[in-house]
Amino acid sequence: MTAIRVLGIDPGLGRTGYAVLEFQQRRPKLVEAGVIRGRQGTLEQRLQRLYQGLEDVLITHQPEVLALEELYSHYRQPKTSILMGHARGVICLAAAQAGTAVQNFPATNVKKLITGNGRASKEQMQLAVQQELGLDRLPEPHDMADALAIALCCGFLSSSPVAPVNGLASSAISLPEIPFAPKD
Amino acid sequence: MTAIRVLGIDPGLGRTGYAVLEFQQRRPKLVEAGVIRGRQGTLEQRLQRLYQGLEDVLITHQPEVLALEELYSHYRQPKTSILMGHARGVICLAAAQAGTAVQNFPATNVKKLITGNGRASKEQMQLAVQQELGLDRLPEPHDMADALAIALCCGFLSSSPVAPVNGLASSAISLPEIPFAPKD
Repeated sequence: MTAIRVLGIDPGLGRTGYAVLEFQQRRPKLVEAGVIRGRQGTLEQRLQRLYQGLEDVLITHQPEVLALEELYSHYRQPKTSILMGHARGVICLAAAQAGTAVQNFPATNVKKLITGNGRASKEQMQLAVQQELGLDRLPEPHDMADALAIALCCGFLSSSPVAPVNGLASSAISLPEIPFAPKD
Repeated sequence: MTAIRVLGIDPGLGRTGYAVLEFQQRRPKLVEAGVIRGRQGTLEQRLQRLYQGLEDVLITHQPEVLALEELYSHYRQPKTSILMGHARGVICLAAAQAGTAVQNFPATNVKKLITGNGRASKEQMQLAVQQELGLDRLPEPHDMADALAIALCCGFLSSSPVAPVNGLASSAISLPEIPFAPKD
């Protein structure tokens, strides 16, 4: 059975979390995770940094799938959802340019699959991701933890109809340097 | 006084209107206008076609400014505004990659400046644009007319604090083939 590489993305204009996981026979392995930073400059400059950072990750790791939170999530602020649409547009474009398929997952499904609770807090998500991947500490920042969660969700749902989630790994795996290879 | 090239864009995922106008001493000249079509395929494929079409226009005409409707317009449907955010993100990225500055104009200001009425209908906008540019027929489709309107608005506001709008041109200029150079 060949390995499948999944790139999970938690989009934002200030900071975008990303996580590359490799799934071999349902077992996820962390390849790289980090954040693409783009808080400064005009909207155009921030989108350009996001695009360039993502292009770099796509070229380096060549994932088969890019997993994103579903389009119509409910944001508290309409302005935020329009701005998130800008970031998402650039992410979808980068995926199309790289020939990587995009899969969308509703946020509540990701939370439910990873923690068992569709309304899990950021801290619960971080803990569940830590356990699922057998990491030696909490994945920080939470954008990166969310990217890991969506990549886990995508890998489990793609490789098996019954998702083996939130199973404790037998031994703790050291997180080498997270954010690992952050993009500036 | 050197000429300024303005690219007006009326963004959409199905069809994006674009218009390149050249302003020399406040007088606008139509360089090219048309639509970039992208109704078919996945969201990613449509965004890629929009990006490629726009990239082509930017390389061909090298405008100094790209004029867009302001970010926080009120769309009737939240889903529409998020989708429009995707298209807008790709447009802003293409501008940043080409080194073209982006200027935003509220839709009501564009309508008011071009027709005298901030709530002008599509037909009123088409007529006002026809008159302003001295075209021999109504600019169709309306996405292209809106792109012409925003380019006019940007050119007038950038080149002069007092905008010479809705002045009838002395002689009708033939619209060669509009949509002129449509992008498929």
